[in-house]
Amino acid sequence: MYRTHNCGELRLADEGKEVTLSGWVQVGRDFGALTFVDLRDRYGITQLVFDSEDNASLCTQARKLGREFVITAKGLVRERTNKNPNRSTGDIEIMVRDMSILNSSKVPPFTIEEETDGGDDLRMKYRYLDLRRGPLQRNIIFRSKLALETRKFLDAQNFVEVETPFLIKSTPEGARDFVVPSRMNPGEFYALPQSPQTFKQILMVGGFDRYFQIVKCFRDEDLRADRQPEFTQIDCEMAFVTQAEVLATFEGLARHLFQHTIGVTLPDFPHMTYDEALRRYGSDKPDVRFDMELIDLNAVAQNKGFAIFDQAELVVGICVKGQAEYTRKQLDALTEWVKRPQIGAKGLVYVKCNADGSYKSSVDKFYHQDDLAAWAQLTGAEAGDLILVLSGEEEKTRKQMGDLRLEVARNLGLMTPGVFKPLWVVDFPLLEWDEDAGRFHAMHHPFTSPKREDVQRMLTGDHETMKALRADAYDLVINGVEIGGGSIRIHDRELQERNFKLLGFTPEDAEDQFGFLMGAFEYGAPPHGGIAFGFDRLCAVINGQNSIRDFIAFPKNNQGRDMMIDAPSPVAPEQLVELHLALTGKKEK
Amino acid sequence: MYRTHNCGELRLADEGKEVTLSGWVQVGRDFGALTFVDLRDRYGITQLVFDSEDNASLCTQARKLGREFVITAKGLVRERTNKNPNRSTGDIEIMVRDMSILNSSKVPPFTIEEETDGGDDLRMKYRYLDLRRGPLQRNIIFRSKLALETRKFLDAQNFVEVETPFLIKSTPEGARDFVVPSRMNPGEFYALPQSPQTFKQILMVGGFDRYFQIVKCFRDEDLRADRQPEFTQIDCEMAFVTQAEVLATFEGLARHLFQHTIGVTLPDFPHMTYDEALRRYGSDKPDVRFDMELIDLNAVAQNKGFAIFDQAELVVGICVKGQAEYTRKQLDALTEWVKRPQIGAKGLVYVKCNADGSYKSSVDKFYHQDDLAAWAQLTGAEAGDLILVLSGEEEKTRKQMGDLRLEVARNLGLMTPGVFKPLWVVDFPLLEWDEDAGRFHAMHHPFTSPKREDVQRMLTGDHETMKALRADAYDLVINGVEIGGGSIRIHDRELQERNFKLLGFTPEDAEDQFGFLMGAFEYGAPPHGGIAFGFDRLCAVINGQNSIRDFIAFPKNNQGRDMMIDAPSPVAPEQLVELHLALTGKKEK
Repeated sequence: MYRTHNCGELRLADEGKEVTLSGWVQVGRDFGALTFVDLRDRYGITQLVFDSEDNASLCTQARKLGREFVITAKGLVRERTNKNPNRSTGDIEIMVRDMSILNSSKVPPFTIEEETDGGDDLRMKYRYLDLRRGPLQRNIIFRSKLALETRKFLDAQNFVEVETPFLIKSTPEGARDFVVPSRMNPGEFYALPQSPQTFKQILMVGGFDRYFQIVKCFRDEDLRADRQPEFTQIDCEMAFVTQAEVLATFEGLARHLFQHTIGVTLPDFPHMTYDEALRRYGSDKPDVRFDMELIDLNAVAQNKGFAIFDQAELVVGICVKGQAEYTRKQLDALTEWVKRPQIGAKGLVYVKCNADGSYKSSVDKFYHQDDLAAWAQLTGAEAGDLILVLSGEEEKTRKQMGDLRLEVARNLGLMTPGVFKPLWVVDFPLLEWDEDAGRFHAMHHPFTSPKREDVQRMLTGDHETMKALRADAYDLVINGVEIGGGSIRIHDRELQERNFKLLGFTPEDAEDQFGFLMGAFEYGAPPHGGIAFGFDRLCAVINGQNSIRDFIAFPKNNQGRDMMIDAPSPVAPEQLVELHLALTGKKEK
Repeated sequence: MYRTHNCGELRLADEGKEVTLSGWVQVGRDFGALTFVDLRDRYGITQLVFDSEDNASLCTQARKLGREFVITAKGLVRERTNKNPNRSTGDIEIMVRDMSILNSSKVPPFTIEEETDGGDDLRMKYRYLDLRRGPLQRNIIFRSKLALETRKFLDAQNFVEVETPFLIKSTPEGARDFVVPSRMNPGEFYALPQSPQTFKQILMVGGFDRYFQIVKCFRDEDLRADRQPEFTQIDCEMAFVTQAEVLATFEGLARHLFQHTIGVTLPDFPHMTYDEALRRYGSDKPDVRFDMELIDLNAVAQNKGFAIFDQAELVVGICVKGQAEYTRKQLDALTEWVKRPQIGAKGLVYVKCNADGSYKSSVDKFYHQDDLAAWAQLTGAEAGDLILVLSGEEEKTRKQMGDLRLEVARNLGLMTPGVFKPLWVVDFPLLEWDEDAGRFHAMHHPFTSPKREDVQRMLTGDHETMKALRADAYDLVINGVEIGGGSIRIHDRELQERNFKLLGFTPEDAEDQFGFLMGAFEYGAPPHGGIAFGFDRLCAVINGQNSIRDFIAFPKNNQGRDMMIDAPSPVAPEQLVELHLALTGKKEK
């Protein structure tokens, strides 16, 4: 037996017990006759003491222990003279009588402590060492707890967890599929699921009523920062439900998860339409922890001789409370920020509402004090506040202002950690017109239902009608992060066929790719709808963190590579022969 | 709102309530003025009544409902005059006032009832209809419950569920990998995991102490009946444990699962060595619900002039209790059975122990009555019993007799449903010598540790010594089915290198494929071990069923094909170009 207790559980009440502990050497310290070793495992750290007067050879052995050696130590629990109140085991130590080294360790390439000196690449390569660090252990254990709480809640609500297959069918719609060549079916391929969408709908047709699954999904995308080729969803579907019932159910889930993991009671979940979110926040995932709403200024800013504003489709401002003292340098920095290609604004106009009631703006040449007073009135700016204004084509400018709003909030520390503000964004457009491609895209996905009142218009309407269709689609947004999204689905063959046609499918392609689903709709498909949550993202948001990578045990880097195992890698030529494949590029093993 | 209640919950206490139900039309029956419709959902069946005197047009509508139509019905709960005690809602019915058809249904290609008339292929193609049937719904819901109970138990034991990656590295060892071409890394491939073996070991090196995961695994094997290319494991690993601690922990899991799903308290879990299991039962996964142990008869059957026995390495018998009356036809059938190529015996010898104390055998020409009496004494046969005897090369003959033992037990109904007999088979050989390939194979896998007392012999011993090494490997067997297997792992680089060498790896290949793991062993790897359970199989065994396919929502057929979605399938030529691949076989889309 390697241990009677773990390194986090001994207390003063255990004094006098003979115990055996095993773990990693965190650090050793020599004080004359005494040597102290901090022994670490997942559960905590316990101090070991070796007394050279008691057992000189054992003490000598202890002094030779390196960092991260794995040892077993046997001894008596005794009270510490100088207690460590920051450690759960800080009242006791183990007077060691016997010790054995289970394994040695080379010197780790970075420190295994709360903060490490290791760079990203090194930490990915030696992931097993990085995973020993407190922050990562807590993240991964948190993830496990979040998954279990998800399951407990959904099980209590009669949801059945059903495993859907990973070897499915490639469909060019959506993102790019990872494919898997079939050895037994030459020239044919499976695809890894981008989501279990069609299968969960099939389960509703199959009468399962309430389905969920915590499941890996795959997208072969060019990886931006903090995207992973494989990621995890909480995937859910319900039959015989309206949108309101879906939202109520998953508001319940979100409340449960926050309550049972970090003890936070979430406030109300307001509903906001997509149009309203864009108008007020310049984003379909608004961070409503702070105000600074977008205010249209066309009425007061146009027709005063400032050509840029006069020619703009939209002039829009935000009021930054108490920041009239922004320096020239700060304003220049913001101006540079909005002119970055990622944002793409041409420039930034500001108005300082001075303490004396006067205004100082970057467009004083064109506007009188009472013009600017009108801006202040509309935006709600008072003495001491700062107004920031952008102008241009409406859709782009709103988005730019939404981005600027977030940047200002970040700079001012308005994204208060520990404060969580959820909301449902609803009534998304059904279709998005792609001017370049000359075709519609599904705003959510091709299985999303138009709102009931739009069904007839969708079946019979003209092109412009299609652009105005609204969907029973919804996103759950918390603190400006979309943590889940879903919709009521089409469950009728005719409507699904119409949607595929609008999305540019030929009837043959639609049948080839989704014939099984449309066929299922002909055998008594119930109305149904659902949602999927980004599980990695949810972990990060609840913990107030930005990177999902720190909540994934074995993430891939931005080239889609696992640095530890060095995958992907070439395969043996025989394997390719068996798979009826030849490489057209470089590299063969 | 589509419903106020589901179809399984209304009782007499709800009498007089106005309710709304939604579901599928199971069947309709017309009785003069009254029409009855059984409405079905996952939760049950509720009887709807339409009265033509009350509402003639509604009743007419109801009479037109086809099987599997989806409807919503609103009405009053009332007591039934002729109650149905076999149905939870059998005391009430709904007097319908309003009804709407949510979706129609074509006539299903097979009956959607407890027993169906659909063939396998048809049921696979229309899986969504098959999934509506009670037996499949119960199986899939059982599976969900089993997974949740697994998680609850392991969570309470401090196990952390960690998701390991699906896009990993191909290693030619073991079964064949499914591979996934990498678009971003031309000529390189990921592999889908055959198991998360190396990752769970890495998690132990990473200090997670106790890991589990219910996880999909993938093997590209030629599919035999009841094998699936993707299957599910309960995968577990523990650090700082001995074999005894692993077995105790997972005996606990098995007990918990049987108790909390079917209310069965499992009996003791005896430990039996691999050698003993083969000797007594001719199998490393013995069904110990019944006796009929294998008895060596060399001492009494050889040197009596029967050349076949005299030349055999082993003569072995079983005593079939009370079956001396087996007819010639039955014995011929058994003889034919053992001569099938799957079994491969040359013939079958029998001895009937007659009621009068005499013996009648198929080898009376060679053996006297007192010779046969000696056989009876050794096998424990008494008057009325039947002795069956096989002979030949030892290993093969034991296995043949083990198979015959099971066949006889099946015929005699000795595999009592509802009786569960678990046992641990332990002390497996570490290595298996492959005479044809002239090399060793790992009996369990290349990461399995020899027993502690065999470590030194493994590092230094000769070829014959290697054959005799025993591993800390174990299988959990219930009713003759291996439901889990595992081992204590090697956690030392030198020993792991030695094992790879014995298994025929060059040092370069070992480093290329498993260098990350051996590297991890150099940074303080703790002793560790674990187990994996076949989750699909476990579902079937607990329910006393043989086929895992009925516990998988969307199984593949024996050609690895999903008949519903028709996968695998050809992909677009552009996809292949992006993946830097060309087909060498047929079919391009």
